[in-house]
Amino acid sequence: MSIDVPSFLKDRARVVDEALERLLPSESEPPETLHRAMRYSVFAGGKRLRPVLVIAGAEAVGGRVEDVLPTACAMECIHTYSLIHDDLPAMDDDDYRRGQLTNHKVFGEAMAILAGDGLLTLAFRLIADNFAAAAASAAALREVLVDVADGAGTRGMVGGQAVDIESEGKVVSPATLDYIHVHKTAALIRTSLRVGAVIVGASADQVRTLSAAGSSLGLAFQIVDDLLDVESTSEQLGKTAGKDQAQQKATYPAIHGLEASRTRARDLIAAAERSLAELGPRAEPLRALARFIFERKA
Amino acid sequence: MSIDVPSFLKDRARVVDEALERLLPSESEPPETLHRAMRYSVFAGGKRLRPVLVIAGAEAVGGRVEDVLPTACAMECIHTYSLIHDDLPAMDDDDYRRGQLTNHKVFGEAMAILAGDGLLTLAFRLIADNFAAAAASAAALREVLVDVADGAGTRGMVGGQAVDIESEGKVVSPATLDYIHVHKTAALIRTSLRVGAVIVGASADQVRTLSAAGSSLGLAFQIVDDLLDVESTSEQLGKTAGKDQAQQKATYPAIHGLEASRTRARDLIAAAERSLAELGPRAEPLRALARFIFERKA
Repeated sequence: MSIDVPSFLKDRARVVDEALERLLPSESEPPETLHRAMRYSVFAGGKRLRPVLVIAGAEAVGGRVEDVLPTACAMECIHTYSLIHDDLPAMDDDDYRRGQLTNHKVFGEAMAILAGDGLLTLAFRLIADNFAAAAASAAALREVLVDVADGAGTRGMVGGQAVDIESEGKVVSPATLDYIHVHKTAALIRTSLRVGAVIVGASADQVRTLSAAGSSLGLAFQIVDDLLDVESTSEQLGKTAGKDQAQQKATYPAIHGLEASRTRARDLIAAAERSLAELGPRAEPLRALARFIFERKA
Repeated sequence: MSIDVPSFLKDRARVVDEALERLLPSESEPPETLHRAMRYSVFAGGKRLRPVLVIAGAEAVGGRVEDVLPTACAMECIHTYSLIHDDLPAMDDDDYRRGQLTNHKVFGEAMAILAGDGLLTLAFRLIADNFAAAAASAAALREVLVDVADGAGTRGMVGGQAVDIESEGKVVSPATLDYIHVHKTAALIRTSLRVGAVIVGASADQVRTLSAAGSSLGLAFQIVDDLLDVESTSEQLGKTAGKDQAQQKATYPAIHGLEASRTRARDLIAAAERSLAELGPRAEPLRALARFIFERKA
């Protein structure tokens, strides 16, 4: 089976966009400004990678898109909230994201903080909504909640951010760099790949396979991100290129060099592909997606 | 039955403190600074009103403290996160809270933002943990999640904050003032009073009664807060008194005057007591607590 990844991604992203449009509070519902601020960042041109991974994870074990859409949207809400808070002056102080002004540049810092808080809270509401069917299992809902809270919380994404912030301008060890990348980025990608499968009733073995693939894929994604920051122009990225170095961020190229970073990313993608092969042909879109992540240009 | 409210509160608050000590990540677990920041604000002398309401709500319908402790702690995590974010320079810019330096004054703004994010995320993990028993019902877990997400999100607390921030320095209508107070404070207090009862299997009628009481109690609580800001010293409050007026905040006394505000708070407390009477003698601690909220001095 040969997959055209750009059109696969585009197709799934369109379904996610339609669902987000429906599931996010309307701009005409009070508090209007806050809802406008939330929608501004959610619809600022994200690739929808995390929700697509939720969907592809579900499909890889025989589930359907519509079974996991609210949870897919929840992962995008969490990703977007993290970008809004990261861009704040007290954090990375970014003016542009995906070629557009960052949230606080448009709505002010207070509203940006609240828009992030609102999106994070909404994510858990959407997960609850995903289990509205009478036959929903409490055990599966619990597993998804634990997965998402751990992937997004201090033992995952927020923890990685905290160590990232603390490490700015310092010489960090390769172990600390791994800690930052694994927590800041890989944790939520791993969670995305798992939760869709859990919702549609995957076996423990299948979830373990997706976990392993998600860990590799997530770390590879962040290493490629580091490489793009060095090798691309701001125009290509839609955000300021070379910013990691300017902010003395801990990155793979800075610590391991460009060539070793490329090799590490390639090895991780290969490991993810091998894991996914265990799931058979239904996981072929995911394998193609893994290769695409390695080859992406923005 | 006569209840000694201060010792009832103190006793329940001690149980909550012990549970928070156990359920919050340790300061020796990475990311250490972030976990220290979270614990700093959670253990900064809060009255634990919201968790006590979760417990008292459960007890009012025949449940036990230990059935709802993780969710009680979740409500305190949400309350604490909201205080940390509110105190930020971009929001209310407060240096002191409960007589101690605010989170960002000790840990810096970036860490304070992340500590808030971490606590909000942890809250949903704790709710999931509360349903770890094999017999847990998916419907009850869903109901609690929806209740908490709506009470804390843009249709509740965060929505009230957004309108509060937007209204600073403006002349607000009584309707807008009600919107702010109902959402900013009353929503989460109402949720607290409901969720404990839902977890222990309260009937729909019992939950409705607690909702009504919670709405009245929550609004009364915020009006009393407004009154205390005018009538107390900073020493009594442990935070800067008179700050609402200095920041041109929309408050009950500013719009309706002191006497009308006192009357409104008293009427709301009476309404809450009447609702709670429907639940019989097991709700007597809650009724005493309602009176105590009206008479509190800080």
